[in-house]
Amino acid sequence: MVRVRIAELSRYSDVTIPTIKYYLREGLLPPGELTGRNQATYDKRHLERLRLIRALREVGGLSVSATREVLAVLDQPEITAHELMGRAHRAVRRRPVDAPADPAADHDWTRARTDAAEQIRLLGWTVDPDAPALDQLADVILALRRVGRADIIEAIPQYAEAALSVAQWEVRLAAADPDPATVLTTVVTGTVLGEALLATVRLLAHEHVSARLLAPPDQPGAAGRD
Amino acid sequence: MVRVRIAELSRYSDVTIPTIKYYLREGLLPPGELTGRNQATYDKRHLERLRLIRALREVGGLSVSATREVLAVLDQPEITAHELMGRAHRAVRRRPVDAPADPAADHDWTRARTDAAEQIRLLGWTVDPDAPALDQLADVILALRRVGRADIIEAIPQYAEAALSVAQWEVRLAAADPDPATVLTTVVTGTVLGEALLATVRLLAHEHVSARLLAPPDQPGAAGRD
Repeated sequence: MVRVRIAELSRYSDVTIPTIKYYLREGLLPPGELTGRNQATYDKRHLERLRLIRALREVGGLSVSATREVLAVLDQPEITAHELMGRAHRAVRRRPVDAPADPAADHDWTRARTDAAEQIRLLGWTVDPDAPALDQLADVILALRRVGRADIIEAIPQYAEAALSVAQWEVRLAAADPDPATVLTTVVTGTVLGEALLATVRLLAHEHVSARLLAPPDQPGAAGRD
Repeated sequence: MVRVRIAELSRYSDVTIPTIKYYLREGLLPPGELTGRNQATYDKRHLERLRLIRALREVGGLSVSATREVLAVLDQPEITAHELMGRAHRAVRRRPVDAPADPAADHDWTRARTDAAEQIRLLGWTVDPDAPALDQLADVILALRRVGRADIIEAIPQYAEAALSVAQWEVRLAAADPDPATVLTTVVTGTVLGEALLATVRLLAHEHVSARLLAPPDQPGAAGRD
């Protein structure tokens, strides 16, 4: 791809010009090369970055600030793949939006955090005791308790088994990548898009299983249909 | 729980008074019973609803409008569990934020949508051809293609197997609930919090697998540590 103006970049990427300008202003996209007072040109790296931003925002559901954090990880070539994965996790983590300023001060949360670490220990997994995903697991455990669904917490080993089979494949895919530059993209897109993929097939699996278990037999999608 | 004022509701739920007032204004929480010109009292149902809102917002990461849509489902007692699950899915779906107004007009998306339906057919799953999760799967497939990771699409059967094992357990849990009123809550919280739980254990599984595969042996978390 030769250098192109913003109108062509918009056409190739299927992202509108105002949105591209917004990403430039927000620093998600590096500036083009100035070729005149009000004109710049863009190259293949801009197009690839734009496609990645789109995937993270639209499919991964990341906010602009979370997208910026993920992209910042990509711009650190000195990082190991293991560290990179930790950074990608930190960027995509879900944390309480209206939570108390200091969740650790909350006794229930502290108990959930201890239980989260214990669940992972029982699984025999090697996880950094300060991993942000453990805080996230504590959030989920606490939320399940608060809505009276502590029974789902008992099923963590089943969720873990399903997640492990996917994660093994995903990490091997990242590790097998011979090009350090694309390992970065693999880990980031794998973390975000892999989550979206797993969440989506879970919804489809719900529909499939529920059609067999829950739908009355005379309704479309019921067990006896096919 | 007897009827309480907003200050006590705040204390019991650990949600600040301004946030409770915001949820009341936004219609997420039904109004209390007026006991004076500027005073209302709240009961156990308000507290339960507030805990559910908190779980959906903070752990499920739902927006206020998505939360409202999910809660509206709960207020329809005439619905079957299978229909309810479909509604809950519609409410929690991720759809492109900056997408073209009519994604079906986009040739690449239409192709991805056809491929999504074909993938589910190959799995032998019974899914409504108009299921919103199929649109979401098309979004993911298109995004993976655009960032050059079509290889992940090949792994959909592996994601599907992992998701199915979790979904079977989740739907049976919902179906086993003897109380129609709590089936609703089970499906909604299961859909949202189960997704958060699966996503979180997947991050922890990444860390565990990556510690063994990717970390240099002299670093903490490396394979030989324990």
